[in-house]
Amino acid sequence: MIIVMRPRASEEEINFVKAQVEAFGFQAHPIYGEVKTVIGVIGDKTGFDSEVFFNMPGVETVVPIMKPYKLVSRELKSENTIVNVDGVKMGGKRLVVIAGPCAIESEKQIKEIAHAVKNAGAVMLRGGAYKPRTSPYAFQGLGEEGLKLLNYAGKEASLKTVTEVIDPRDVELVSSYVDMLQIGARNMQNYRLLQEIGASKKPVILKRGLSATIEEWLMAAEYILYNGNPNVVLCERGIRTYETATRNTLDISAVPLLKNLTHLPVIVDPSHATGLSNLISPVSLGVVAAGADGLIIEVHNDPAHALSDGPQSILPQHFAELMSKLENISVTVGRSI
Amino acid sequence: MIIVMRPRASEEEINFVKAQVEAFGFQAHPIYGEVKTVIGVIGDKTGFDSEVFFNMPGVETVVPIMKPYKLVSRELKSENTIVNVDGVKMGGKRLVVIAGPCAIESEKQIKEIAHAVKNAGAVMLRGGAYKPRTSPYAFQGLGEEGLKLLNYAGKEASLKTVTEVIDPRDVELVSSYVDMLQIGARNMQNYRLLQEIGASKKPVILKRGLSATIEEWLMAAEYILYNGNPNVVLCERGIRTYETATRNTLDISAVPLLKNLTHLPVIVDPSHATGLSNLISPVSLGVVAAGADGLIIEVHNDPAHALSDGPQSILPQHFAELMSKLENISVTVGRSI
Amino acid sequence: MIIVMRPRASEEEINFVKAQVEAFGFQAHPIYGEVKTVIGVIGDKTGFDSEVFFNMPGVETVVPIMKPYKLVSRELKSENTIVNVDGVKMGGKRLVVIAGPCAIESEKQIKEIAHAVKNAGAVMLRGGAYKPRTSPYAFQGLGEEGLKLLNYAGKEASLKTVTEVIDPRDVELVSSYVDMLQIGARNMQNYRLLQEIGASKKPVILKRGLSATIEEWLMAAEYILYNGNPNVVLCERGIRTYETATRNTLDISAVPLLKNLTHLPVIVDPSHATGLSNLISPVSLGVVAAGADGLIIEVHNDPAHALSDGPQSILPQHFAELMSKLENISVTVGRSI
Amino acid sequence: MIIVMRPRASEEEINFVKAQVEAFGFQAHPIYGEVKTVIGVIGDKTGFDSEVFFNMPGVETVVPIMKPYKLVSRELKSENTIVNVDGVKMGGKRLVVIAGPCAIESEKQIKEIAHAVKNAGAVMLRGGAYKPRTSPYAFQGLGEEGLKLLNYAGKEASLKTVTEVIDPRDVELVSSYVDMLQIGARNMQNYRLLQEIGASKKPVILKRGLSATIEEWLMAAEYILYNGNPNVVLCERGIRTYETATRNTLDISAVPLLKNLTHLPVIVDPSHATGLSNLISPVSLGVVAAGADGLIIEVHNDPAHALSDGPQSILPQHFAELMSKLENISVTVGRSI
Repeated sequence: MIIVMRPRASEEEINFVKAQVEAFGFQAHPIYGEVKTVIGVIGDKTGFDSEVFFNMPGVETVVPIMKPYKLVSRELKSENTIVNVDGVKMGGKRLVVIAGPCAIESEKQIKEIAHAVKNAGAVMLRGGAYKPRTSPYAFQGLGEEGLKLLNYAGKEASLKTVTEVIDPRDVELVSSYVDMLQIGARNMQNYRLLQEIGASKKPVILKRGLSATIEEWLMAAEYILYNGNPNVVLCERGIRTYETATRNTLDISAVPLLKNLTHLPVIVDPSHATGLSNLISPVSLGVVAAGADGLIIEVHNDPAHALSDGPQSILPQHFAELMSKLENISVTVGRSI
Repeated sequence: MIIVMRPRASEEEINFVKAQVEAFGFQAHPIYGEVKTVIGVIGDKTGFDSEVFFNMPGVETVVPIMKPYKLVSRELKSENTIVNVDGVKMGGKRLVVIAGPCAIESEKQIKEIAHAVKNAGAVMLRGGAYKPRTSPYAFQGLGEEGLKLLNYAGKEASLKTVTEVIDPRDVELVSSYVDMLQIGARNMQNYRLLQEIGASKKPVILKRGLSATIEEWLMAAEYILYNGNPNVVLCERGIRTYETATRNTLDISAVPLLKNLTHLPVIVDPSHATGLSNLISPVSLGVVAAGADGLIIEVHNDPAHALSDGPQSILPQHFAELMSKLENISVTVGRSI
Repeated sequence: MIIVMRPRASEEEINFVKAQVEAFGFQAHPIYGEVKTVIGVIGDKTGFDSEVFFNMPGVETVVPIMKPYKLVSRELKSENTIVNVDGVKMGGKRLVVIAGPCAIESEKQIKEIAHAVKNAGAVMLRGGAYKPRTSPYAFQGLGEEGLKLLNYAGKEASLKTVTEVIDPRDVELVSSYVDMLQIGARNMQNYRLLQEIGASKKPVILKRGLSATIEEWLMAAEYILYNGNPNVVLCERGIRTYETATRNTLDISAVPLLKNLTHLPVIVDPSHATGLSNLISPVSLGVVAAGADGLIIEVHNDPAHALSDGPQSILPQHFAELMSKLENISVTVGRSI
Repeated sequence: MIIVMRPRASEEEINFVKAQVEAFGFQAHPIYGEVKTVIGVIGDKTGFDSEVFFNMPGVETVVPIMKPYKLVSRELKSENTIVNVDGVKMGGKRLVVIAGPCAIESEKQIKEIAHAVKNAGAVMLRGGAYKPRTSPYAFQGLGEEGLKLLNYAGKEASLKTVTEVIDPRDVELVSSYVDMLQIGARNMQNYRLLQEIGASKKPVILKRGLSATIEEWLMAAEYILYNGNPNVVLCERGIRTYETATRNTLDISAVPLLKNLTHLPVIVDPSHATGLSNLISPVSLGVVAAGADGLIIEVHNDPAHALSDGPQSILPQHFAELMSKLENISVTVGRSI
């Protein structure tokens, strides 16, 4: 950490800050510039709140030097983490494709889609039973009934299953029906939910918050690992920007950047990221070429009648076409599918 | 709702969409333009998911015409809602100023600050017992012990109390200690928390999410009213933008805009919005001049040693100076303090 | 400047960077932390491109410590700059209100508005003769004919005049007709235009770019001062964010922040910032309470028939009402109008 | 265009708006909903400013239905435009890779890089002679001397050349030295520059503005076509968002979206988009897989000593490795290189 003093900070102010730094158990190394003095602070500052220095007399700002995360860091663990979802390995050589409807609506719907995506090559089935909806008037999901349907459909089609959990009280119940949990964008900083899932050890997909920085996202993952669960998969799903032509802005650079910063697997959700069905195929190819470990894609059997869905889903036949293109790209970048 | 058809949509596609509109129980009114046809959809679409039309053949886009919120709307209820917090009325003529530390740290700390802000004219005491911290290593608040200290300090200084609740399981416990709840920015779309607080009837401050639109924010408030609790106060606390010179960007226009759109009281948190102690006073004057119903301000007795705080708090003497300026501005805009 | 080395940077890499720092004529002060080494770089780095260090072996990042601007800085010149526009002083005790139509359309229009805003208390007349329009098909302004009309109307109503210049080739011509130039948001980083206006000495309003940081904005002003023209007034006009309920997001915090960072006057354009006529009055009061030195407001005599205008203009009677409220707020914050 | 009336708009207000619509020569088609009335406006509104309706009594908002651009639209011209840069065809089957230094610094530098990128497979040489720099103290480019060096180097290495023009007065001069012009992000809405280049017919790369929407960007291209020059190539170079881990956020979705909306070629600049040399290779592969027609990449021979450059350039050997990966990806998506 570097404490930057104001241009005309007095010797007395500098000495006070130095004394405070040392009182907290750190070493202080001042550098006297022509205009400003900066004080390097040496020592392990994990959990220390650097803001304490901001209000000291003569201090202009505080610049952190160390990353605030540890357990998720590539520096701590250089080899890739492979998250094993009952046999499906995420983060390894094989590209993992998860597919399914936005919301589970009926037994017929989820089973039909399950078989269709299985045939096309997906290895995991997604489907929402608890939907975080912007409107209290909108369909909120089938709840536990939906979990049962997802479970049946997954077993029947030999697909692992993943679904979103939105309440810390539901973690155990949801875990009993599915192979993997998902934390949605709106709950990325729901710390109680992160803690419960951290305690549960269940594999989990952690979606990036609507406007979360890479660092905040990694800190959310750190919460889960810190509470005991190392089975975290990060999922880029687009960020909120000024651009309205797409639902969100897919941050493709986040994929290789995360592969540098962390050992955790990184997948991408092109459906929420773009919100437009005709963009899903090209951006899926793009993020896989850029190094993503997998994809989670919304597929619907009859989008015209979906209860919670819309323009961000594709039909099974389009999904199958995409899978065959993905196979070619995967090989080109040294992966299998 | 207006359904916009693609430039070369066929008569057959247009008729299919019309038939679907009618099958959902609405009336369809097509307008045939030179290049595109649009279809006006008449009928009550509360809770209806307009996205269903997006994937129909020939549809380009769907444009909503009605606001998605009802209960919070000024159109439904034209007079201002006055939220009564055990005698302190928010949303009326009197400007309500809430002050206190970011986190409750000790009995001495919270009591000293309580007396200081009371003497300066504050009517409610804030202080965090459960802190949603970006890092799992950072101080997370004193929990129930903090709630007790806040309760004592409020009683001793004759101030109403408000604190943040971050877990739906804590709503009852927290409500037993304080006069008003707060939903933080990170939990604005934690729907289970909104539902529990909706069921509790306790007055609540709903902070705007880090990157929530005005409409999403009003929809979050709608959740609380829909679940039975009309005592909601909206709090603008800055939004996330590309600008890094301030912690967030205070959206002053949101204040008069919300006063047009909703009957709920609107207050502002200049501390989180700016993140810089020397900006708190001028922007507080600004938002009151623009029509805010109140302010919530972080005050610390010794910021140099705060456990969770930093550059966004001011000292009691600066708070007292600000209160005297606020008094003048309040009178100028026809309010008292 | 602080050069941060990677966690496992070698002694050789550190020494190479130190040697490079010294080769550029600076002093290098390394601090050896437990994980990372940082190197403080002492010396005048004006115009030096710190990015040169980024690609050196073992370097993680470079953190600037000094502000990149000098001439506009409050540190260089502590007293406020008063920009004198032929007798109208901007940046002093008096709040300066500039008003007029978006575009000059006819002699009748500009004269009527000139008299109306003069009667209400405005001291300067605005009006566009060269309009930077998003569409090539839209009205682009009357050009030199518009400048003449603005000049006549200003003289007749005893108002100083200001208009936008969009081409470095027009600076001399435009300057011959008006008292003050304006650089629009889209041209904030049109460096050739900044240089020409810098050379001209004409007082100039420099609007903030659509998504310019405070620092980039001050650097644009620095260009003008560096080229010889100290008569720069900064104008906050809203920034681009994800929020679409208003045209832009007015950054009120920028006003007091700039008053700390620079000696230049700071005014606000509430018309472009909000894009909604019913928000202009409350936010105008707000920014004046927060310390703005003036306002530039769009006023139209018959908005229903404006050629380039729309919902962000107000009528003369609304402007007159606003002026009377501004007088009260001005007095409260120690200014006159 | 749809005019949306306020909830309680009177019959008189509705009739007034209808009459105005007809007075402008359009047809008005009202739809009377339960709460709101909307008025469909039929007729060619090219260049018509819809904002005129905003201020009419009873009007809530105006919703455009038609795209504001015509000449650049895929609807007008369904086949791809091939921009021919003296034999290099952009927008066809072949992926076009442009490479070179950020700024031209010396004869030795530009020639060395030219040969290196030519050997690796690049077909065009980039290099800045006029640099739009944030700071007036920074190196502004070699000017005409730089143009000459670029011209020599291009000829010697058999590469076409492209460089940025920042002033409408320079278009002719710059055109005399290079094969293709570039309009930088800061000048995307410098309309006088767009007009001059439109009149010149010279092939031109139009970079997306720092925070330009897709629509604004296409409108900027429309200016160039409208002024007579059809040889426009769009270049995505990252947009400004809240994320600071990368210099900008590369909007990969923009590539396939633009391919749908316009017939113009679309290339990507991964160097400015990411600002980090180790991300250039993965995102380059990604955007090509997503359908980009080409890339423009910064390559430097000795980044440690660049005058205007830094962490966003790669060395020739890394560029050569990237080219070989691009060849594989190109084949996979049905292109050659």
